[in-house]
Amino acid sequence: MMFTHIDENGRVKMVEVGDKEDTKRLAVARGCIKVAKSTMKMIQEGKMKKGDVLSVAQIAGIMGAKKTSENIPMCHNIFITGVDMKFYLDEERSVIHIEGVVKTIGKTGVEMEALNAVSVAALTIYDMCKAVDKDMVISDIRLVKKTGGKSGTYIREGEKFERESFGSKY
Amino acid sequence: MMFTHIDENGRVKMVEVGDKEDTKRLAVARGCIKVAKSTMKMIQEGKMKKGDVLSVAQIAGIMGAKKTSENIPMCHNIFITGVDMKFYLDEERSVIHIEGVVKTIGKTGVEMEALNAVSVAALTIYDMCKAVDKDMVISDIRLVKKTGGKSGTYIREGEKFERESFGSKY
Amino acid sequence: MMFTHIDENGRVKMVEVGDKEDTKRLAVARGCIKVAKSTMKMIQEGKMKKGDVLSVAQIAGIMGAKKTSENIPMCHNIFITGVDMKFYLDEERSVIHIEGVVKTIGKTGVEMEALNAVSVAALTIYDMCKAVDKDMVISDIRLVKKTGGKSGTYIREGEKFERESFGSKY
Amino acid sequence: MMFTHIDENGRVKMVEVGDKEDTKRLAVARGCIKVAKSTMKMIQEGKMKKGDVLSVAQIAGIMGAKKTSENIPMCHNIFITGVDMKFYLDEERSVIHIEGVVKTIGKTGVEMEALNAVSVAALTIYDMCKAVDKDMVISDIRLVKKTGGKSGTYIREGEKFERESFGSKY
Amino acid sequence: MMFTHIDENGRVKMVEVGDKEDTKRLAVARGCIKVAKSTMKMIQEGKMKKGDVLSVAQIAGIMGAKKTSENIPMCHNIFITGVDMKFYLDEERSVIHIEGVVKTIGKTGVEMEALNAVSVAALTIYDMCKAVDKDMVISDIRLVKKTGGKSGTYIREGEKFERESFGSKY
Amino acid sequence: MMFTHIDENGRVKMVEVGDKEDTKRLAVARGCIKVAKSTMKMIQEGKMKKGDVLSVAQIAGIMGAKKTSENIPMCHNIFITGVDMKFYLDEERSVIHIEGVVKTIGKTGVEMEALNAVSVAALTIYDMCKAVDKDMVISDIRLVKKTGGKSGTYIREGEKFERESFGSKY
Repeated sequence: MMFTHIDENGRVKMVEVGDKEDTKRLAVARGCIKVAKSTMKMIQEGKMKKGDVLSVAQIAGIMGAKKTSENIPMCHNIFITGVDMKFYLDEERSVIHIEGVVKTIGKTGVEMEALNAVSVAALTIYDMCKAVDKDMVISDIRLVKKTGGKSGTYIREGEKFERESFGSKY
Repeated sequence: MMFTHIDENGRVKMVEVGDKEDTKRLAVARGCIKVAKSTMKMIQEGKMKKGDVLSVAQIAGIMGAKKTSENIPMCHNIFITGVDMKFYLDEERSVIHIEGVVKTIGKTGVEMEALNAVSVAALTIYDMCKAVDKDMVISDIRLVKKTGGKSGTYIREGEKFERESFGSKY
Repeated sequence: MMFTHIDENGRVKMVEVGDKEDTKRLAVARGCIKVAKSTMKMIQEGKMKKGDVLSVAQIAGIMGAKKTSENIPMCHNIFITGVDMKFYLDEERSVIHIEGVVKTIGKTGVEMEALNAVSVAALTIYDMCKAVDKDMVISDIRLVKKTGGKSGTYIREGEKFERESFGSKY
Repeated sequence: MMFTHIDENGRVKMVEVGDKEDTKRLAVARGCIKVAKSTMKMIQEGKMKKGDVLSVAQIAGIMGAKKTSENIPMCHNIFITGVDMKFYLDEERSVIHIEGVVKTIGKTGVEMEALNAVSVAALTIYDMCKAVDKDMVISDIRLVKKTGGKSGTYIREGEKFERESFGSKY
Repeated sequence: MMFTHIDENGRVKMVEVGDKEDTKRLAVARGCIKVAKSTMKMIQEGKMKKGDVLSVAQIAGIMGAKKTSENIPMCHNIFITGVDMKFYLDEERSVIHIEGVVKTIGKTGVEMEALNAVSVAALTIYDMCKAVDKDMVISDIRLVKKTGGKSGTYIREGEKFERESFGSKY
Repeated sequence: MMFTHIDENGRVKMVEVGDKEDTKRLAVARGCIKVAKSTMKMIQEGKMKKGDVLSVAQIAGIMGAKKTSENIPMCHNIFITGVDMKFYLDEERSVIHIEGVVKTIGKTGVEMEALNAVSVAALTIYDMCKAVDKDMVISDIRLVKKTGGKSGTYIREGEKFERESFGSKY
């Protein structure tokens, strides 16, 4: 009998985290979507045919955080203790900035949950506006902060953190 | 009795497409993820602890296309006839380019399905590599081509199409 | 060999609809949730801790319509062409009325989709307000109209239809 | 740069529960569906074309409890330790009463899970019987009891609790 | 720029079926689960702690058919027109035989849906009985018949078809 | 008022596990699929039209483990700490052996998760190869080992355990 095709290196697995400690964990991800000037105006004036763009994007992002382990194959299914989404409109550059903050207490981090929340929110903005603007581009989806767990705190260079979330500075 | 809070403009809806015609539709989306040089090398050599990165990303993208209407609130649930994902490694710039092609026959386009496939594939690459590289950035997720439907063909300016997919030029 | 336990009458099945014709179908369902006077006021003033109640309920209802066949065991999975949700606040009686309109073109009706949309919207209102009001009651979830299909049009006695939806009287 | 559209009050969030204690929690919800006399008789005699109505409704309710956080946008995804569904047929008034009991150990209650279980069971009864009765009405979906958590025990006024569930009085 | 890692042969795809014709399609799958004599007796007498085994297995199988494309990565998501599950108890050999019949009208067959329905039903029987019997074995999951589509009718050698389903011989 | 149709014995429930202790738990399941000699060869040479068979099956199995409680009605939804899948090709008998190992820390075992992972992997192999081989048979899906929990260790008679998984003998 021969072991073939997927050797020890190439073999995919959902890595075992049973020996990791339960700690409070937080992840903050950011991204943005560039839209046409006229699209930005329609979003601000609530004129999109499908409805209020940012409300839908915000809810989609929160629900997206909960569905992360269904979409990302090797991602653990975890209990999320809180999700918060924020949007900033940069009218001058015609860009919508999106931030997702996800918290948990557990054995694995919530980086993927925060990144997925931002990504789903950006795609939802695209969907709500695509009837009038097909040239939108989603960019700069990145982890900007992570705390908790064995690897400790990560802060992406050059990012600013000046606002409150969940009632406390993060 | 008063109608409040969500006026006719602001009200969200899943727009009715029952009067649209069934046509063959295709959408091509692209995006990329910038990784560290050392990460690129580990991907190419199959040394990631979680397994072969691009295989998982490809399957995740295809499955993501099928889950689009669950993640994007106002998106119609549709029958997808085919999905194809491609990856190009630009070693010099340390960027992985991702392309998703989705086809259907129906009353609504598959732009969101193609964009979601690319987005899920990029997030999966992030997940597979994040133990060694947290600085990766997902960018330039965009629609590059769409055919079929009343609004006809859309081709994003400046994109190149030189390869085959589904056995025929697109 | 013996056939047991689930006889021909008792046996559950997803009934075959392959011989039914594809027709345009519409279903309208309604229901309501009774809340405390103080809860109604907080909803109107946007003071709930979890956020704007009716926006979330509306989106939840639309997404609920798409998930109907996952929740209702013998329900066919179908392509929905459109969903629209409306809310009316009866301040005097402290009741929020919910209406869901679902359309499709196909072999089975969308009664369950409309009823589920209303039910999910009502439960979402409960969830958004339960921190301040646990006595809310969801009632009168019912089909009020259905068109299309072999059994034809059904209009529930005593219901009023005076508003527009999807751009045309229904 | 301007923060717009969704101000601090209106912004939706999944509220952070990371600082809440893990406690044993229970929720009991009830509701009912009014059916035609002839429908009640067909249910009792197992004559519905789709199969045994109450068996399907019971299983649907239990599975519904597990899917609650997918349907209700701001609801936390949690580990449910047990679910029990009961049905009472009031032949005289032609009403089926439904009760759902859900238990967990965790940081958030299971009120929504119990309410969703009852709601899904009622909708399933509607689905199983709608070929012969479109006038059915689902009503009085309400929380009747809740224990555990910081807010402690809630018992709805006027409800009776005389039966056993999970092997112990609740 | 180099195309790597997943060459044209190895690359996974959801094969395009847009050019296939819509035809009526049927698939019949079978399988079985071998249980202990005492387990068989408990199933027949309805003594399992979790409830009536075959009712739950039947509903699980039908719902499983609808979830096939979520579980099998390259499987198309399709509209199923009908599902029927049957169980036969072979007391002598202590085996429960399971049959799943799935129908559709469309561009791809329902072989996977029928096989998945049988598989989920068998696993559900395992789950319902595992407290008293961990030695059960699920075997012989196979396609026994398929009609419709370009490749036409397939009948597995040695299988018997003597019963009715969906009101007509298959 | 009469309690009918589903008596205390027949009534299905998701059994309460709230009083069970949190322990480390592991389950190992195995199964196999018999294929034609020519199919085995095509799998080994990577010539299937849909792509590399075992890679897809492996990822499908891991994702299947996470979806178990959605497919098996009375199964608790749990946090899985790790999943590992292995495939062995027995060329002589033309059989692919599949093994799934699932771990958790919690109040219920992961037997169903391991069995479902194996089952989904086997069905995926069927799906990837069915264009060239409809006679494949899935068999011998069984629990081979389980540790943790009140009932302790179970090892199926006659099974061999000679390999490593998750970095330690199991």
